[in-house]
Amino acid sequence: MRYGIIGTGTVGRTLATKLASLGHEVTLGSRTSDNTAANEWAERSGPYGHADTFARAAEFGEVVINATAGTVSLQALHLAGASHLAGKVLIDVSNPLVFSATGQASLDPVNTDSVGERIQREYPQARVVKALNTVNADLMVDPGRVPGSHNLFLAGEDPEAKAVVRAMLVEFGWPDPAVLDLGGITAARGLEMLMPLWLDLMRHFGHVDFNYSIVTAD
Amino acid sequence: MRYGIIGTGTVGRTLATKLASLGHEVTLGSRTSDNTAANEWAERSGPYGHADTFARAAEFGEVVINATAGTVSLQALHLAGASHLAGKVLIDVSNPLVFSATGQASLDPVNTDSVGERIQREYPQARVVKALNTVNADLMVDPGRVPGSHNLFLAGEDPEAKAVVRAMLVEFGWPDPAVLDLGGITAARGLEMLMPLWLDLMRHFGHVDFNYSIVTAD
Repeated sequence: MRYGIIGTGTVGRTLATKLASLGHEVTLGSRTSDNTAANEWAERSGPYGHADTFARAAEFGEVVINATAGTVSLQALHLAGASHLAGKVLIDVSNPLVFSATGQASLDPVNTDSVGERIQREYPQARVVKALNTVNADLMVDPGRVPGSHNLFLAGEDPEAKAVVRAMLVEFGWPDPAVLDLGGITAARGLEMLMPLWLDLMRHFGHVDFNYSIVTAD
Repeated sequence: MRYGIIGTGTVGRTLATKLASLGHEVTLGSRTSDNTAANEWAERSGPYGHADTFARAAEFGEVVINATAGTVSLQALHLAGASHLAGKVLIDVSNPLVFSATGQASLDPVNTDSVGERIQREYPQARVVKALNTVNADLMVDPGRVPGSHNLFLAGEDPEAKAVVRAMLVEFGWPDPAVLDLGGITAARGLEMLMPLWLDLMRHFGHVDFNYSIVTAD
């Protein structure tokens, strides 16, 4: 599978490295083609790793991953180009975090909208799946960092697209039953709204190797 | 311990019944003293259970529990009276859910504020602790309905008040280590913002006997 990754931060590079290590061809996309982090990543990554612009990465990918900050995702995807997103599985990993001068986090959008929904509305021909935004980057690609069973969530309108994302997560090492399908893209709201609790839990534990396990009577 | 409960809905009555069964004296408070549900509850509950107004319930309680809908909590606590809340442990169990005409849930307040914080600001002499708003009423008082280990959370400014709430939860059957203290009352934001995911999980499982277990590497 060919992946195009939009965003060269920790999340983008971590996903790119894992996908390339699994034998997928990956283009790590950045705003400009002279992005040092992206080019260094591509040099280290061997024949499966490439670095290029958002537009070339999106064009390259059969699956496109939005790994930009949620507050700039629409702008980044605009640069990627609607024609390069049409018909593609578009995994939205983002959280729209805004930090105040005192360091207090909030979300924008929130509550009656979400980044996942905004992307799906803006690119109706993309098959958007919200996923992976609820865990730290290292844990995304290495679920064994946290012992026992714990969960990821999917939200999106297209069942086939969700099946593609589920298969990628299973390749990453997530047990199939650990991936809970919450339904349509509106469920992206609840997933993005987990972020404030996640930040409080990070402060509580003093590290980021934790996750939610949904325990149920049946 | 004497408890005053503000609100006669399922949450208020469930907490009142459990507290009375544990030998605590409870006044279940309603907007008017002729509330049928509250009076029937008191008749069934024996010598430990009373029904009265919000104001009498708050006056009666050494610990006061806000079990009203989050959207009307400040109004209800206004009727309870600031003088009856001053110095008291005030447990805020509420979620500020608003449902659209199509049934879509949202929260008000949200993101940059919470009901827990609003109550603490409005009643600075009360010792507000956000707790229990993340689980169904039956599960609040019977954690064994969901197997294995799973968590509750506390948020509030007063460590002694949080210790009082923790002791109540342990009386309910929650293991002490299952109750995670997330710090000051600002953490109420993240706890209230769990509600959209909770509703999606309820739809996913088809029941309400589930909870979050926070799994961590250490």
